[in-house]
Amino acid sequence: MKRQRNGEIWDFEHEMPANQTATEVVLGVDGGTTSTVCICMPLIPFSHSLPPDPVPVLARAVAGCSNHNSVGETAARETLEQVMADALSKSGSNRSAVRAICLAVSGVNHPLDQQRILAWLRDIFPSHVRLYIQNDAIAALASGTMGKLHGCVLIAGTGTIAYGFTEEGKEARAAGAGPTLGDWGSGYGIAAQALTAIIRSHDGRGPHTMLTSSILQTLGLSSADELIGWTYADPSWARIAALVPVVVSCAEAGDEVANKILVDSVQELASSVKAVVQRLGLCGKDGTDSFPLVMVGGVLEAKKRWDIGKEVINYVSKDYPGVQSIRPKVEPAVGAALLAWSFLMKESYNENYRS
Amino acid sequence: MKRQRNGEIWDFEHEMPANQTATEVVLGVDGGTTSTVCICMPLIPFSHSLPPDPVPVLARAVAGCSNHNSVGETAARETLEQVMADALSKSGSNRSAVRAICLAVSGVNHPLDQQRILAWLRDIFPSHVRLYIQNDAIAALASGTMGKLHGCVLIAGTGTIAYGFTEEGKEARAAGAGPTLGDWGSGYGIAAQALTAIIRSHDGRGPHTMLTSSILQTLGLSSADELIGWTYADPSWARIAALVPVVVSCAEAGDEVANKILVDSVQELASSVKAVVQRLGLCGKDGTDSFPLVMVGGVLEAKKRWDIGKEVINYVSKDYPGVQSIRPKVEPAVGAALLAWSFLMKESYNENYRS
Repeated sequence: MKRQRNGEIWDFEHEMPANQTATEVVLGVDGGTTSTVCICMPLIPFSHSLPPDPVPVLARAVAGCSNHNSVGETAARETLEQVMADALSKSGSNRSAVRAICLAVSGVNHPLDQQRILAWLRDIFPSHVRLYIQNDAIAALASGTMGKLHGCVLIAGTGTIAYGFTEEGKEARAAGAGPTLGDWGSGYGIAAQALTAIIRSHDGRGPHTMLTSSILQTLGLSSADELIGWTYADPSWARIAALVPVVVSCAEAGDEVANKILVDSVQELASSVKAVVQRLGLCGKDGTDSFPLVMVGGVLEAKKRWDIGKEVINYVSKDYPGVQSIRPKVEPAVGAALLAWSFLMKESYNENYRS
Repeated sequence: MKRQRNGEIWDFEHEMPANQTATEVVLGVDGGTTSTVCICMPLIPFSHSLPPDPVPVLARAVAGCSNHNSVGETAARETLEQVMADALSKSGSNRSAVRAICLAVSGVNHPLDQQRILAWLRDIFPSHVRLYIQNDAIAALASGTMGKLHGCVLIAGTGTIAYGFTEEGKEARAAGAGPTLGDWGSGYGIAAQALTAIIRSHDGRGPHTMLTSSILQTLGLSSADELIGWTYADPSWARIAALVPVVVSCAEAGDEVANKILVDSVQELASSVKAVVQRLGLCGKDGTDSFPLVMVGGVLEAKKRWDIGKEVINYVSKDYPGVQSIRPKVEPAVGAALLAWSFLMKESYNENYRS
């Protein structure tokens, strides 16, 4: 399939009209800064209050980055269209079978971002197709709650964000603003602090640390000076974030500098969660109500002795003992598809209730 | 003049042989990340131990960025060649009149960087021309000490670095590694912390701060959310560092968050100076010897009530009471030209002494 024009991506001319008895589908898209995943799911009957486990998936398609902040609007749009077209094609389905789409895309931080995406989606899909545009954090939350928009999600991979929803639809977020704006608990933040500690030790501003030999060896560098050229050579955040396991190993081996970086990061991550829980009142009036905390991303999943995710939960539960941590069993794109399904179910319920 | 090939920049074919009585010159180049300046200075007789004041300048030429980390090696080399050719041409002089060149370029952090630059300079200038390749911090130091390589320089503009030399030629540096590697006292560092404070206040992780209204108004933004798009739109560090005066104004108006950012930055900058002074023993064995501290860059020059430069000196003088602060009267490129002159004088002295 070609990527240039809508007609080419979607092949409007040769599209067959949907058979009335064809399987209706929903699409869930998780658009991250490294890749974009689209899941095509058959429409589960609304008689179920929770989706079946395992979730039925007709097809899965993958594409590159769809964050408009990173690749620009045109490229982001093309990637999103392509991944949806691919998922439909793999399902043996087409646009006319689609009932709802949940597009959860990183970089959607403002109502204007949502409106812009809605405008071009409306050019492609008929008006009866329900469209939901969200930040990608929502897909991660839904992947833990199986489509229910309630609770808080903490994502900590290369970047980090905390996002929460109340049952009434109130939402709040913390962090997720990128390295310049202080996402210090992220994988990038942890690794950048480790690199900084090496420079400070090297030039006499900071204490000796095991991070120097461990990280220089990992990168194949012979001196701390060479780190300057290394960081300038490629500004990719993911490349720096990939050093997190080395920091964890040094902390486990007793290095105080590495340990302090991890402790500080745990506090940063916990403070993001607590800010969201506090603003939404997820913990109830006396602070003891139960609420789900979905934990997603490489920084939180490290199954190491020094377990960052576990420490974050410990910190949060000191203030909010009702926190229920969840490690999702499905990927965020499935969460997005479940969200599309649950939005549709809610609308259908509301319509039936009104009529 | 064209920029593509050496022959075109230098016009080898039409160059006149130097008249034996033509004025001999030295070149000083200050190659920064925003611009590159070349000064062409007549060779001052070596009978003076200090250069005349004012320093005689034959010509001054300006070009763009020559940091190879930022623009790549080819573009950096072309910029450096062009600015030297321009300065010679404006002086009515040419390559054969050159006795020495001091090239002080940002991004020279490693002996390999020096060797690479030396290699291509040797293609252009005859073997009797003395070539000195240094980090650009050295030019700033020499602009305060009038060509004497002794003492410490602290530069804090968009970036920051501390660099020092002993009379014996021992050198040391601290910071100057870029934002990823923790140059928190820089203009970029100060402004990035202010932007972070706005995000933290907005999402509930941090206290209210006057920085929010002041910076959003300066940038013409209506909400803290819009800062995310603003920082992604253009990753230029200088654009972010330009917000330092707003941070200073907020601190002067009593904002605690802004004040803490400046206090922390003063400590960071002072710690860079102290690391260099300590490692070089500039303060003598009992820590009270006198040594020059040259202060350069927009962050240190702000003639505000909240005077970052003055506070840094206060901090340093608590540990090293012999610190003598200097605000240079000439620009770094003049410092580089004076360095070329003083290197040449030293070599000439050594030769005479040996013979």
